[in-house]
Amino acid sequence: MSDDASQAAARPTITDVARHAGVSKGLVSFALNDRPGVSAETRDRILASAEELGWTPSLRARSLSVDRSYALGLVIGRSVDVIAADPFFHAFIAGVESEFSAAGQVLVLTRATPGREEAATYRGLAADKRVDGVFLTDLRSGDDRIALVHELGLAAVTLGHPDVDSPFPAVSVDDGRGIRTAVEHLVELGHRRIAHVAGPSNMLHASRRADAFIAAATAGGADPIVVETDFSAVDGARATRELLAKGTDRPTAIVYSNDHMALAGLSVAQRAGLRVPLDLSITGFDNTELAEHTFPSITSVATDAADWGARSARLLLAAIARQPVEDVDLSEPRLVVRESTAAAPDAPHAPHAPART
Amino acid sequence: MSDDASQAAARPTITDVARHAGVSKGLVSFALNDRPGVSAETRDRILASAEELGWTPSLRARSLSVDRSYALGLVIGRSVDVIAADPFFHAFIAGVESEFSAAGQVLVLTRATPGREEAATYRGLAADKRVDGVFLTDLRSGDDRIALVHELGLAAVTLGHPDVDSPFPAVSVDDGRGIRTAVEHLVELGHRRIAHVAGPSNMLHASRRADAFIAAATAGGADPIVVETDFSAVDGARATRELLAKGTDRPTAIVYSNDHMALAGLSVAQRAGLRVPLDLSITGFDNTELAEHTFPSITSVATDAADWGARSARLLLAAIARQPVEDVDLSEPRLVVRESTAAAPDAPHAPHAPART
Repeated sequence: MSDDASQAAARPTITDVARHAGVSKGLVSFALNDRPGVSAETRDRILASAEELGWTPSLRARSLSVDRSYALGLVIGRSVDVIAADPFFHAFIAGVESEFSAAGQVLVLTRATPGREEAATYRGLAADKRVDGVFLTDLRSGDDRIALVHELGLAAVTLGHPDVDSPFPAVSVDDGRGIRTAVEHLVELGHRRIAHVAGPSNMLHASRRADAFIAAATAGGADPIVVETDFSAVDGARATRELLAKGTDRPTAIVYSNDHMALAGLSVAQRAGLRVPLDLSITGFDNTELAEHTFPSITSVATDAADWGARSARLLLAAIARQPVEDVDLSEPRLVVRESTAAAPDAPHAPHAPART
Repeated sequence: MSDDASQAAARPTITDVARHAGVSKGLVSFALNDRPGVSAETRDRILASAEELGWTPSLRARSLSVDRSYALGLVIGRSVDVIAADPFFHAFIAGVESEFSAAGQVLVLTRATPGREEAATYRGLAADKRVDGVFLTDLRSGDDRIALVHELGLAAVTLGHPDVDSPFPAVSVDDGRGIRTAVEHLVELGHRRIAHVAGPSNMLHASRRADAFIAAATAGGADPIVVETDFSAVDGARATRELLAKGTDRPTAIVYSNDHMALAGLSVAQRAGLRVPLDLSITGFDNTELAEHTFPSITSVATDAADWGARSARLLLAAIARQPVEDVDLSEPRLVVRESTAAAPDAPHAPHAPART
């Protein structure tokens, strides 16, 4: 075995952390177990020492005293292909993980088809004490997971507000506002035939975006058209082809419900000989890394999925520690204007698009 | 509580599965615990029944008898940002999850900086019996995780062959062959100044791709140029700008080490007024969904990360069940030729690129 491996072999103890932070062992134990009576400053110093030394909690020791699993669960209801393609989940999970380094938590990830299999999965996670709490994502209308998870005695946070009574705190982005900002930007540029390439209507956030789109377009005097998809790039391309096939009635702008579909739509338009943004404006959603690496770059609604993950993890950990928790509204989504939006081709009096770099 | 939730409340038992599959309870137990003596056909029928009924194992009952956690671990050593941006991990994880539905396993996902923190994380996973085995990804030169994980008594599979002795089976793709196929395609099209936008040289698979690139380009009579990146789109764009700034000495083709960098490079080239593929050919790696949704679409080396995940999970589960295991070589990577590659602009005698749709 190499020297490196031997050195790494010593698992640091609470005594090591106490020595490094210059405090008592008891104080370290209090700080690491989130008990009151430690100042924020001292707690931060102790956590920094723990992280620097690579300390991790001894789960067996802690579980015996407090009956916790020190794990959070995420049960994803989408198909394997859709998970693999959607950058939202990866950014969200990365954000969740960013909160774990000092706390010694792990994420238990599994997939289950909504319905019987999903319910059995939550029951199993609770019965086996696999997790202390779960993230409820992709909320559905009348979502039965909320009553189930509550009955099972698990802590939870919901991503967004459910449309049923919920005992759990919600971490939300104002999806509707994000879509409104995009539509208002396009209306201001003179667009009056605007389409929305929406996500699956059985997902609350997708249907809220579609509702907000119709309201904002109508308020702006535009004709709203909505095409539903499964959120995948290939379905976004299919929806775009349908919209562009409408000939002279085709929309002059398309608001996509995620960036991957916007990217696929951009190439469909270019392939059809349309210049983006001169002939067609497009906007994306989520402001993923690739939106600024296309030509033209894509105007997108920024929601910060990684921050969403980090805030959700902090809230869930607080709920598990029986600290008081409240709903969290994330920062307002903002429109990042790039090169893919400009004055409508049929609107001679529309203001010119500002120069962009 | 709604009727749906009440219906979902009954956790199906082994008796239910036995009745559904038309076999004895004992046979179900044997099949679900991977014990010998059940024919493959019967086992498949039992697993199908278990899945249809939404059966999940009672972990407490099983753990007591066999001392297993029924969880697999993945410790990712990259930064949170790089995880979020790299589609390989999402496809790999989705593939792993696809093997879990009937077996009642979960994936424990965590992140740790290589070195002390990483070693402490593996020690914690083993000491706390969080996982029965781990996936070792992003192998490094002289990787000390192999001796550590072996010493900890965990089962493991490595993604790719390590350059140190390893007691663990490896699931590998011939990266070098993938890169060679791309270079040979470009040489055949008359390219003689070919660049490689590589991943981090401390990752074995990135350095193997770079070595294979240099060997294949040299063998084809081309001048190899290699630029190292961190695998991110933004760094791929930076590398492309550097290469294109070489004026008349610039490469006529660029082989990227992943699709996101190829996509970013495509837009850098288009923005600089170059026509892809007439002025510059480009190839990607991993053949992710977006490669076919750009304009032009991107020629890419297909490796099938989801299949890699599924095969790795099956091998790891077999190793945990103490079944005999052997190294697995995944299917040969193949080049999916699309619109982004064509005859070199400075090669009048090069064959014309075939017409593509």
